[in-house]
Amino acid sequence: MRSFAIERRTAMSTVTPAYEALASTWTRLHHLQHLQAIAGWDHAANMPPKGNEARAAALAEMAGLLHRMRTDPALTSQLERAEQEQLDELQRANLREMQRQWRLSNVLPESLVQRQSIATSRCEHAWRQQRPANDWSGFVGNLQEVLALAREEAALLSAQTGLRPYDAMMDRFEPGMTSARLDQIFGDVRQWLPGLIRRVIDKQSREPLITAVGPFPQTAQRSLCEQVIGLLGFDFQAGRLDVSTHPFCGGVPEDVRITTRFRDDDFLVSLMGTIHETGHGRYEQNLPRALLGQPVAQARSMALHESQSLSFEMQLGSHPGFVARLAPLVVQAFGDQPAFAPANLHRLITRVKPGCIRVDADEVTYPAHIILRYEIERPLIEGEIELEDVPALWDDKMMELLGVDTRGNYKDGPMQDVHWSAALFGYFPCYSLGAMYAAQWFATMRRTMPELDPRIAAGDLAPVFGWLQDHIWSQASRWTTDELTRRASGEVLNPAHFKSHLEQRYLD
Amino acid sequence: MRSFAIERRTAMSTVTPAYEALASTWTRLHHLQHLQAIAGWDHAANMPPKGNEARAAALAEMAGLLHRMRTDPALTSQLERAEQEQLDELQRANLREMQRQWRLSNVLPESLVQRQSIATSRCEHAWRQQRPANDWSGFVGNLQEVLALAREEAALLSAQTGLRPYDAMMDRFEPGMTSARLDQIFGDVRQWLPGLIRRVIDKQSREPLITAVGPFPQTAQRSLCEQVIGLLGFDFQAGRLDVSTHPFCGGVPEDVRITTRFRDDDFLVSLMGTIHETGHGRYEQNLPRALLGQPVAQARSMALHESQSLSFEMQLGSHPGFVARLAPLVVQAFGDQPAFAPANLHRLITRVKPGCIRVDADEVTYPAHIILRYEIERPLIEGEIELEDVPALWDDKMMELLGVDTRGNYKDGPMQDVHWSAALFGYFPCYSLGAMYAAQWFATMRRTMPELDPRIAAGDLAPVFGWLQDHIWSQASRWTTDELTRRASGEVLNPAHFKSHLEQRYLD
Repeated sequence: MRSFAIERRTAMSTVTPAYEALASTWTRLHHLQHLQAIAGWDHAANMPPKGNEARAAALAEMAGLLHRMRTDPALTSQLERAEQEQLDELQRANLREMQRQWRLSNVLPESLVQRQSIATSRCEHAWRQQRPANDWSGFVGNLQEVLALAREEAALLSAQTGLRPYDAMMDRFEPGMTSARLDQIFGDVRQWLPGLIRRVIDKQSREPLITAVGPFPQTAQRSLCEQVIGLLGFDFQAGRLDVSTHPFCGGVPEDVRITTRFRDDDFLVSLMGTIHETGHGRYEQNLPRALLGQPVAQARSMALHESQSLSFEMQLGSHPGFVARLAPLVVQAFGDQPAFAPANLHRLITRVKPGCIRVDADEVTYPAHIILRYEIERPLIEGEIELEDVPALWDDKMMELLGVDTRGNYKDGPMQDVHWSAALFGYFPCYSLGAMYAAQWFATMRRTMPELDPRIAAGDLAPVFGWLQDHIWSQASRWTTDELTRRASGEVLNPAHFKSHLEQRYLD
Repeated sequence: MRSFAIERRTAMSTVTPAYEALASTWTRLHHLQHLQAIAGWDHAANMPPKGNEARAAALAEMAGLLHRMRTDPALTSQLERAEQEQLDELQRANLREMQRQWRLSNVLPESLVQRQSIATSRCEHAWRQQRPANDWSGFVGNLQEVLALAREEAALLSAQTGLRPYDAMMDRFEPGMTSARLDQIFGDVRQWLPGLIRRVIDKQSREPLITAVGPFPQTAQRSLCEQVIGLLGFDFQAGRLDVSTHPFCGGVPEDVRITTRFRDDDFLVSLMGTIHETGHGRYEQNLPRALLGQPVAQARSMALHESQSLSFEMQLGSHPGFVARLAPLVVQAFGDQPAFAPANLHRLITRVKPGCIRVDADEVTYPAHIILRYEIERPLIEGEIELEDVPALWDDKMMELLGVDTRGNYKDGPMQDVHWSAALFGYFPCYSLGAMYAAQWFATMRRTMPELDPRIAAGDLAPVFGWLQDHIWSQASRWTTDELTRRASGEVLNPAHFKSHLEQRYLD
């Protein structure tokens, strides 16, 4: 496939005035969103507690302002007129994405956007204290408002798109995905996953495993993480690594802020989490630069974004060849110990163990966490259940899917994620879809580059980065997700690759 | 004096619609400036180099947006109508400050504001590399554009206010101050300062002085700084201490961000600098909360702001009684050594030594640095000299005022400060005016609280904070600077207090 480069138009065309006006509006949005993104990162990484009310008000003001820009009546006719202009294929793709964003914005009244910004800031901020205190009822007190507003939003989106309410919410993150398709995909996973988990646990129980002995000093963890994400190509001249309660990748493409958290007793959680965020970060850092700010130059979708973080964490970061390169760095960081022998380190990294926490889950049990959340948040949004039903459902499904008892443990149950506080209903499925896409990317790489695994084992990651650059990063939002996937791998999403990947890595 | 508390109007008056509309606009400005302030702090404390162009564009976009809000034609008639409304005294003070800000904004066209934002971001960012490289000509390449735009601004401000161009620039920071008054004040200081410096150096040369032996680990310095600014009442729940090239106090009143920088070979530079920024920080943290966002609740002026930082650094932080409380903390941080005996530590802190660097200068030689800058930037702005004249003038004046040779040393000469890169022409005088105000505040405290010095020596700082709270912090911009000063101390600025302070501390 020809590598696709978006080039800046230095001489502005005068035959596309409506399109140019739109492009200029989106550039302005990009600039203001930059400040929003940095303030959002600061909120999570730096902000002292008493700053919260003022920050929430400031972010709400900005949300309202951006919303007014996106709903400026002038856009309506500009979008219509641009349709009639002589646009090249790239401009047409950009216009398609503008129309999509315009539709999403215009369905929501400004007052709703502002109320959401205030409610989510408040909920998330209180959650930082409530979660360690296991204060479910306090949390629900704030979450109730967030949910009520999300249902309002879902109803409006549904009315406009004709999708059912949850699908309309999910469509914001994963255009084209529906709960009908998800029911099929997750329904299939539900069939084979519990059996696979049992077989893997059984196999692993017969393998020797040496536990790493801590404590692992945070300064050593930090420099190990920096070293590894440097190897993974993260550009520290255009980004940072910091600490936050809930790790994420934020900032802007020109200045990517990834965060992690350190635990003295376990360095792998932080290391693998950082590798995960690095995948997000490299996608952002390598989006086509010349048209940054235009919708066509933005990441394709959240599942595609997760496909990058999981390509880094699971496909590459947990690859036995890569882990063998990692082992000496771990020894360098913490001193030598038997646990750090490459084969043992790989067993530690790929250890399958059902547990409470999604972000700490291995890639085999991970889909169970997502299926559970999907099965709770869809009926929540569609009003079939209420927040007071959540703990019991959570406990039942954790027991059913993973055999884990979570009763009374809200902080490691429905309070563990930031997503609901932030009104990101419909986001969770993207994680498992991302794992499936990532497996599909690596299956394609192996098919087209038979020498892939030996090269990874030799420490040569260029083929992986080159393939991702050509097929994912540089493509940004030029195509729909299905079209991008077809062009990259010859078929649309095919979850069979994910199942094969798990069977091959964990049962062969 | 009765402590002044601004109270929120819970029931909005309907007889002051124009005033209420204005107040609401200023609240919106406050929210957006919050994001600008945090992004500005991040720029100095965190941002990786490749983020600069995007950040500059984002800040320019915001500068333009704020400028459009401040120049909205609707404000003109609202300000006129509010004049006729039944306002209480506090609202009238707020309206006066709104009018002042409105005048300052409306004289500048948006294109100038945007060009300034881009030019200053670029100049300041490049300066970070150019200063250590002593690259004066590279620096001038960027500064030329900043100066050209500042002259444009000065001409516009001058035409509107009737002040001469430099006075019009200074009026942005220090309303009411003129170069005629400054020529008098600084002309007087020029008379007695060189002689005073000579006598102090002569006296100190006969006192024993033990140098502190480093290195001083940065982690120990950091925790010492945190401990001391905690003692000084800085609220870490509403602010942070971080590191930046040029220490400053930024952020917002609800979330104050002070920065410092650490040198392994000297802990006093960082410690006293941090105490200085803490003075700024406490002023901000203690501005009247209920009307935050309204001009009347903002800090009175830059000289008043400096009077707070210098009240903390010089009046209080260098007070022999306070230094005696500091000594055991220094011992705790770095281990015991003879230099840390209270009397010796005080001699180290109050050591007078002419040098190149303004921010490292002692309080006796400091005014010379300011007089030099004032004597260069006034003619620079008024077109009497050009940037190529600056190094020679700098060298001459440093030799004349302080006997220091700076030839060829641009990095510790005219490139040492961030102010000119940031177009803050007219700001420098505020530092020495602030020192004079600080001396006046403490002279007043001693007059009205004869037990002040023993209480400071006993570690009881409440009288100082209480006086500043009542007379400065809580008063914000309720009065003009002269009126506030009269109410606080019984007279307008009287530089004799500063001279007495220096003579008493350094020659008695």
